[in-house]
Amino acid sequence: MLLSAVTLFRERGVDATSLADVVAHADAPRGSIYHHFPGGKSQLAEEATHRAGGLMGSLISESLSNKGPVETLVLIIDLFRRELVETDFSSGCPVAAGALSSGECPTAKDAAGEAFSSWEATIAASLWQHGVRMSRAQSVATMSISAIEGALVLSRAQRSTQALDRVAAELVAMAEDVLADATSTGRRADAPDR
Amino acid sequence: MLLSAVTLFRERGVDATSLADVVAHADAPRGSIYHHFPGGKSQLAEEATHRAGGLMGSLISESLSNKGPVETLVLIIDLFRRELVETDFSSGCPVAAGALSSGECPTAKDAAGEAFSSWEATIAASLWQHGVRMSRAQSVATMSISAIEGALVLSRAQRSTQALDRVAAELVAMAEDVLADATSTGRRADAPDR
Repeated sequence: MLLSAVTLFRERGVDATSLADVVAHADAPRGSIYHHFPGGKSQLAEEATHRAGGLMGSLISESLSNKGPVETLVLIIDLFRRELVETDFSSGCPVAAGALSSGECPTAKDAAGEAFSSWEATIAASLWQHGVRMSRAQSVATMSISAIEGALVLSRAQRSTQALDRVAAELVAMAEDVLADATSTGRRADAPDR
Repeated sequence: MLLSAVTLFRERGVDATSLADVVAHADAPRGSIYHHFPGGKSQLAEEATHRAGGLMGSLISESLSNKGPVETLVLIIDLFRRELVETDFSSGCPVAAGALSSGECPTAKDAAGEAFSSWEATIAASLWQHGVRMSRAQSVATMSISAIEGALVLSRAQRSTQALDRVAAELVAMAEDVLADATSTGRRADAPDR
């Protein structure tokens, strides 16, 4: 049921998705939704946003430890690009859907804020571990998430991956620059010991 | 009525705004909405998105001719930041609202796509006039609009201007770099004449 909610929220937004739509998509018995989500749509939207944010967060963390920041940006963008194309440019970011839900689901908005902050903090920490100073790492992390989220909005409206493709190239170049700077600064700091 | 629609779409999204809400906000007689917008909500959403995109487009064009690319980025971001703070982080970009409207208003999505493309083209043309090669100018323009649109999503969810502030600093630095590169390349090209 949560998976159906995430799918529909990504495509239509939280406000245009009814509980009946979710039950039908999940092929679940009517009434079961209030058994699992006694708080109704507000609770469902909050939990769906939290779940989607957590899954993406785990993916980001794993990729950062195994492959590094540049490859992780490419991975996230590729995932979203594939979903866009497969759904004829209708499926956006599930956490953004929570962020843009109206007053009816205030806790979904908070869950989205927490998810974004956790992604930003994870990417910033990884850049810092690669030698980037923390304030710059935080700024680059926020820029990365913002540019990807915005490119998804442009790509959906333009029915084209062009915005996402351009943002991918810009973000990869930015991350490479910032990592190269960190490495060269590190070398300079080591110089007096030689 | 169009202004009321833009205001409500920005805060709640297109799907969570009813025609009755718009009529009440505009303090207009019931029924007048179908006089002005015989196509109902779909037409209203399309025209509101088109109007909002056009107004912002004019502002961008004027600022680019009078002040230049860096000042224009600062101007756009400051406008959105002020709206965010004044509405307790509920008011986003009216064109993004059109982009994210559901299947009920398909022409609003197209109007949003056109507005984004026109902003991108205007900014790219200005960067090109300042000596930046066109492919780079287009990429930086798309990156700028995407990062601002995404930062608005993050800022609304986090109820903080932090994302928008960080993106502002990154975009200004990026635009300054790209313009400085264009100037120094221009100088090199002039060198043989000296």
